[in-house]
Amino acid sequence: MSSFRPILLVIGLMLTTLGLAMLAPVLLDLLVENPDWQVFLAAASVTLFVGTSLVLVSRGIDGRLRLHQAFLLTTLTWVVLPAFAALPFAFSELSLSYTDAFFEAMSGLTTTGSTVITGLDQAPPGILIWRSLLQWMGGIGIIVTAVAILPMLRVGGMQLFRMESSDRSEKVLPRAAQISAVISVIYVGLTVICAAAYWGAGMTGFEAVAHAMTTIATGGFSTSDASVGHFRSAAIDYIATLFMIVGSLPFLLYFQALRGQPLLLWRDSQVRWFAGILAVAIAALAGWQILGNGVAVADAVRYTSFNVVSILTGTGYATTDYMQWGPFAVTAFFFIMFIGGCAGSTSCGIKIFRFQVLYAAASTQMGRLLQPHGVFVAQFNRRPIPEAVMDSVMSFFFLFALIFGVLAVLLTMLGLDPLTSISAAASALANVGPGLGEIIGPAGNYAPLSDAAKWLLSAAMLLGRLELFTVLVLFTRAFWEA
Amino acid sequence: MSSFRPILLVIGLMLTTLGLAMLAPVLLDLLVENPDWQVFLAAASVTLFVGTSLVLVSRGIDGRLRLHQAFLLTTLTWVVLPAFAALPFAFSELSLSYTDAFFEAMSGLTTTGSTVITGLDQAPPGILIWRSLLQWMGGIGIIVTAVAILPMLRVGGMQLFRMESSDRSEKVLPRAAQISAVISVIYVGLTVICAAAYWGAGMTGFEAVAHAMTTIATGGFSTSDASVGHFRSAAIDYIATLFMIVGSLPFLLYFQALRGQPLLLWRDSQVRWFAGILAVAIAALAGWQILGNGVAVADAVRYTSFNVVSILTGTGYATTDYMQWGPFAVTAFFFIMFIGGCAGSTSCGIKIFRFQVLYAAASTQMGRLLQPHGVFVAQFNRRPIPEAVMDSVMSFFFLFALIFGVLAVLLTMLGLDPLTSISAAASALANVGPGLGEIIGPAGNYAPLSDAAKWLLSAAMLLGRLELFTVLVLFTRAFWEA
Repeated sequence: MSSFRPILLVIGLMLTTLGLAMLAPVLLDLLVENPDWQVFLAAASVTLFVGTSLVLVSRGIDGRLRLHQAFLLTTLTWVVLPAFAALPFAFSELSLSYTDAFFEAMSGLTTTGSTVITGLDQAPPGILIWRSLLQWMGGIGIIVTAVAILPMLRVGGMQLFRMESSDRSEKVLPRAAQISAVISVIYVGLTVICAAAYWGAGMTGFEAVAHAMTTIATGGFSTSDASVGHFRSAAIDYIATLFMIVGSLPFLLYFQALRGQPLLLWRDSQVRWFAGILAVAIAALAGWQILGNGVAVADAVRYTSFNVVSILTGTGYATTDYMQWGPFAVTAFFFIMFIGGCAGSTSCGIKIFRFQVLYAAASTQMGRLLQPHGVFVAQFNRRPIPEAVMDSVMSFFFLFALIFGVLAVLLTMLGLDPLTSISAAASALANVGPGLGEIIGPAGNYAPLSDAAKWLLSAAMLLGRLELFTVLVLFTRAFWEA
Repeated sequence: MSSFRPILLVIGLMLTTLGLAMLAPVLLDLLVENPDWQVFLAAASVTLFVGTSLVLVSRGIDGRLRLHQAFLLTTLTWVVLPAFAALPFAFSELSLSYTDAFFEAMSGLTTTGSTVITGLDQAPPGILIWRSLLQWMGGIGIIVTAVAILPMLRVGGMQLFRMESSDRSEKVLPRAAQISAVISVIYVGLTVICAAAYWGAGMTGFEAVAHAMTTIATGGFSTSDASVGHFRSAAIDYIATLFMIVGSLPFLLYFQALRGQPLLLWRDSQVRWFAGILAVAIAALAGWQILGNGVAVADAVRYTSFNVVSILTGTGYATTDYMQWGPFAVTAFFFIMFIGGCAGSTSCGIKIFRFQVLYAAASTQMGRLLQPHGVFVAQFNRRPIPEAVMDSVMSFFFLFALIFGVLAVLLTMLGLDPLTSISAAASALANVGPGLGEIIGPAGNYAPLSDAAKWLLSAAMLLGRLELFTVLVLFTRAFWEA
């Protein structure tokens, strides 16, 4: 391992940004004269002090990152930021334990949306906006990571999304910085449009902003214990459904759309698959609700489309307790959790492009069975999939399944029932939010879980968010010997 | 597609064998003067008539099989045989519906062990021995298929187990026939030893033979509704545990051991992994039972080793209702179902060698992440794994997961609860037998399920038994166009 200093520099800059972001809740709580403003100010001071110190001790080095450093930096960032982001939760009037506070912060920054807090409807605005801000920052953070860093690290097949010029790591940063800046502007723009739509549909300005931030981030934190269901508005449900989908599409395509190629959005096979899978899932569940459970058509379409999109994209908002829809819906929602959105979006899960690669690989296999000497090339977006990408995606899928199983079993060892354990494992790893069952279902909350379970789930959120490999590679001997 | 005649010839021969096997229950029921002997005689007549007719109309052709024919033959065999094997169940004094009879026969021939019959303790010996015979014939059938046919078809990575001389299909049959004959002798020998051990431990001669046949076949049919738990004997439990393991090791290694290389059995990495996984699972569950649930050490070791081996190898015997062991055990048993035994044995599931290949692939990925230009070669049994095998295994794993999910959701649409649906899907696909929950758990029975669910599960057993691809390929357009 060479010097840690470039890593400290970037983490310092991130912490400084985080500290500055804490000033928003300070102002908000001052405005409503809630004493929590002091907590946020103190947390901001600590975070800014540590952040700027790190920047100062690390300045004067160039910005090049070696491969090893990039892995360490990416993982460390997503561990250190929640550690500081948790401070306001721990010291506010909610007086959460540090475990709970860290869980909430990790759930926020990874855009998971699992919460340990109850009484959101009475919570001070500082805490509410802080939760929304965490998801919003986490959302843009993961897009930038997915566009600029993960393709370079070639984790889990993300090298499919390398930009032409990103073959050599020295060149990637300036161009990546430029693209990231444009994408950030798009991200802010979409958030503003979403907030305006919510506001127009009847939310207060505060609610509209808080929800817009967690919608576009496919995060799922809400300002009410009843989540979006609180508003009892079809318009708000449909706005949320639309913008959760917007948050799950590849942001690079919005960038290209702005540069005059809007058709790329529909020509992209990942977008088509995503639309197809959503359509099938919604049609099946809505049909079931209408024909099987006798729900009115309008209600069935509204509630199934909202909840399917919410779970499939890993947002985690709820408008109804779909645990009451019967075994088919419960089981369907369980499997939908794993799917996730497109690469380069704010959503998580296994992701659409991996299913495309796996499907292409399986089809190719079938062809080869019948013609052992025939030439079959698996394709993605009309281009052949390199063997390395295929291996990478397949290993990702295997590790995802393996880690999911181990995690579920570990959770049962901590005393949770099978349904809660299995769904919590899936939900954390895929950054969804709610699980299934009485405790952590769409009408539930993660507070009753033991501390050990919360740490385990925090680790799972991190693993899932960083595409497994980015974290796992740090636990290999080869990493530390190099 | 060229001529169907070679296919009809082989199926004719198989049916003739099946018809002859039906004469065993005829004799047994005559001996105890149970009128069911007439049912078996009638079924035998029909089966022998159809079988010999097929042989007669197809005689005079040479034995060479083209690739397409081999796929069709393998799948057709495992559909036609259960169709005839079901006849005695449908017309015996049990008077099962044909759906139930087919389910029972498919469960038998695929060595799954799920049953729809209750009142086994009072059932006539003909029916009992017929169930055992089906599993026993299914067991040797699948070993021969796995040794002689699947490597040639290269399904799901089975080409790893090609014999040196099996590269060209014309040459494979004589040598495969020779090896199959030796393996059949070994199979019979092991069954005799197992039966003698059971008899020595206190079973009646009939019970000993019936159980020996379903133990070595890792099938799981018993002569009692209480399964092996009926005997309340530690000795019988341990004999069963030992021979379920014997049935799950690669039979080719027994062949090589007989030829003077007994050490190959322990040097084989698949055997070591299998032993390791079993040891970890048994230690974890026994430790949990002793420390967590206060079970006496001897009881904990006996019951956990028996039940872990039974589920992991896909046998499906039960000695206790482990649904009562708490959430950890239930969830652990669920994931253990998927594992399965070694390739070329009577057990099913994803199989040990695939986990080895997947693990090797994931490790190689990790290495490549850190050294993009380094050379990393995944190995199996100290030999590099060809890329085609890796792709094949990975596609198998993906399709297994996908089919499992779809199947589980379909079962919930038929009205089953989530736990029953999910565990039934896993249990059928991995040819295990019992599932989880009240209905189909270790203390339950498949009789209450709807006809549609039984057909679906029968199809899943077939898919799982033939390594998915052998069946799926028949549903591709390319297959019928060639």
